[in-house]
Amino acid sequence: MPRKNSFITLLTDFGSEDYFVSAMKGVIFSIAPGITVIDVTHSIPPQKIEPAAFTLLAAHRSFPRGTINVAVVDPGVGSSRRSILIAAGKQFFVGPDNGIFSYILDIYPSHKVFHLTNEKYFAKNVSNSFHGRDIFAPVAAWLSRGVTPKNFGKGLTDAVRLPTLQTQKDKKGRLVGRIIQVDHFGNCVTNITRKDLSEAQESLAALVMNGKQIRSFRKYFADAESNDNVFCIWGSAGFLEIAAQNESAANLLNVKTGEPLLIEFRK
Amino acid sequence: MPRKNSFITLLTDFGSEDYFVSAMKGVIFSIAPGITVIDVTHSIPPQKIEPAAFTLLAAHRSFPRGTINVAVVDPGVGSSRRSILIAAGKQFFVGPDNGIFSYILDIYPSHKVFHLTNEKYFAKNVSNSFHGRDIFAPVAAWLSRGVTPKNFGKGLTDAVRLPTLQTQKDKKGRLVGRIIQVDHFGNCVTNITRKDLSEAQESLAALVMNGKQIRSFRKYFADAESNDNVFCIWGSAGFLEIAAQNESAANLLNVKTGEPLLIEFRK
Amino acid sequence: MPRKNSFITLLTDFGSEDYFVSAMKGVIFSIAPGITVIDVTHSIPPQKIEPAAFTLLAAHRSFPRGTINVAVVDPGVGSSRRSILIAAGKQFFVGPDNGIFSYILDIYPSHKVFHLTNEKYFAKNVSNSFHGRDIFAPVAAWLSRGVTPKNFGKGLTDAVRLPTLQTQKDKKGRLVGRIIQVDHFGNCVTNITRKDLSEAQESLAALVMNGKQIRSFRKYFADAESNDNVFCIWGSAGFLEIAAQNESAANLLNVKTGEPLLIEFRK
Repeated sequence: MPRKNSFITLLTDFGSEDYFVSAMKGVIFSIAPGITVIDVTHSIPPQKIEPAAFTLLAAHRSFPRGTINVAVVDPGVGSSRRSILIAAGKQFFVGPDNGIFSYILDIYPSHKVFHLTNEKYFAKNVSNSFHGRDIFAPVAAWLSRGVTPKNFGKGLTDAVRLPTLQTQKDKKGRLVGRIIQVDHFGNCVTNITRKDLSEAQESLAALVMNGKQIRSFRKYFADAESNDNVFCIWGSAGFLEIAAQNESAANLLNVKTGEPLLIEFRK
Repeated sequence: MPRKNSFITLLTDFGSEDYFVSAMKGVIFSIAPGITVIDVTHSIPPQKIEPAAFTLLAAHRSFPRGTINVAVVDPGVGSSRRSILIAAGKQFFVGPDNGIFSYILDIYPSHKVFHLTNEKYFAKNVSNSFHGRDIFAPVAAWLSRGVTPKNFGKGLTDAVRLPTLQTQKDKKGRLVGRIIQVDHFGNCVTNITRKDLSEAQESLAALVMNGKQIRSFRKYFADAESNDNVFCIWGSAGFLEIAAQNESAANLLNVKTGEPLLIEFRK
Repeated sequence: MPRKNSFITLLTDFGSEDYFVSAMKGVIFSIAPGITVIDVTHSIPPQKIEPAAFTLLAAHRSFPRGTINVAVVDPGVGSSRRSILIAAGKQFFVGPDNGIFSYILDIYPSHKVFHLTNEKYFAKNVSNSFHGRDIFAPVAAWLSRGVTPKNFGKGLTDAVRLPTLQTQKDKKGRLVGRIIQVDHFGNCVTNITRKDLSEAQESLAALVMNGKQIRSFRKYFADAESNDNVFCIWGSAGFLEIAAQNESAANLLNVKTGEPLLIEFRK
């Protein structure tokens, strides 16, 4: 089993064409040469915090205990937005205080958040445009070497939060949800979980979105018993997804992240 | 020299924007924290098995002995398609039984194939949509830790096979081939090898494709002695390629993977 | 602190869809299994040497001492262009002699350059199209194992150089510069450094490009005190950049790499 703190993950909107990600890794390896770095993704749409928060939520469940997750989508870099370190779910999270760790804070109520202020663990010259390299990478690396969270700064309790992933119920008893991610295959991930919609309820449910109704629920993608081209399926991140047979459901339905939807129930 | 089984490679159609690849790595490192993971590519066109099979064939020749190659292009995930483990060419191959390992099976006739059925080495809850994370990643990790192949399941001999990469001869003595890959630079990789076309035969040969004839063979890309803009060149994977001077041959010739071609010989 | 030569970085124009990068890694790990490989980028525009040279310049400053940087953008592969190894700035650089290491040579005047000729450290069969796999990867791996630079070949002093990044002054006292990189966010990196333009001079300066004048200098991206949509900002690589509020400055100004610009000073 892994030593505690042997892994650092990186999740950014930096893309893959520039030197940015490698600079973060260079900083990490300069401080903690034995660490293993795992790229989550660097293809978050520029400056979009919600898809980053969702991707981190889905990814971190597979990481070893003690993993240090660095997430940098940071439109406020250089301004007064705070830098934070979170201990939650037996892992760590390092990045800007702009909501990117919001869903992590939601699911681990006993989290602890620290305000990164101890410049001893930052780069000597902190730029105004690249805290990923100058603050978050070195903090993560020092954390992996055993520096305790409170050494980086004082605790705080008012971290920035995004709207929750929780669904709501309207007056008619319908579930009110939304699309929280469109994946590489065009599958549309909703914020609906098994707590919202049990297996028993599926046969009575219809998903309504963008003027269309989807009644088909498949167990797996290649399910030949289903006739419907567009269908609901329980996705690998634990949320209900809308998919299409060998096609992009997002293209077919003309749907983007944020699209509202309803689950109606027949009586 | 590397310890046996120190390396796991990943080849998928998952793209780079989602959490999928990092989840597989998280699972691998949770079981085998000291392993090194090598990404082959995650940009296989969605659900396309042949390009995945070719890329794995070309890549694996450079990997250390004992490398465990996980390949996941898996339109049948969750259905009755089998999961397999192959021992071949002093390496291992783990993934769905849908033809993705076909060219590996072709070149190593003394391969052994095992049906992955022992759930002891799977995730506790196997999803219907992400066997990369729930079956193939943990099996590869346990294999790297020394679990022997037969512990994962019984042998089988009827693994799914794609059409072979072997060329054929038509009645007129012409070689009948096809484009098996278009690479990042627009070079068109054919299925023609040195066994089909010796160096001595080149001066008599013409490649005919899409109504065009290509007679020029270059030794290297920047060869100034050649006047032709489009030319044949022996590629780094051991196959004849069609390339263009500082341009995409695929765009210039309007050719895609699967395009048929002929090699004609002057008498 | 890292052992000397524990890290190899890779920078290419190979893209991410083919087997090329993984083949280089396979070769490296076959020779030096304990090494850590860092991807700088594989998304350099095909055959473009200047963006590769800039990216390497910006990235290498964050790498540990002793890092071996392999850079392969190589339109002349297989021709008479030389293969080189450079010792400079307490790091190493391996690749084709086509200018890709030009900016490294510029900033470390006490560099040493070696002509890679000792085939003992190459692949057994060197292809004419993939020296990244057959020459540069194995040389980097053997170097990491302690082979001394002069064992790879004789010194040389006439390495190919690109036009310098140095700005010039015109007769009117204006700085003459250019755009050297457009990054993932559309920020336009100029070749202007703090040596060209001090903080005191900023209030008197105007950047003129493509018929437009930019007078606004921001300290950081989210600076609310600035009214201008397009502004100058000192970037994380030490160069002046032109950026736009939540937009691509490159798109807004219709500017590409190579675009000339002037800095004018009010008296």
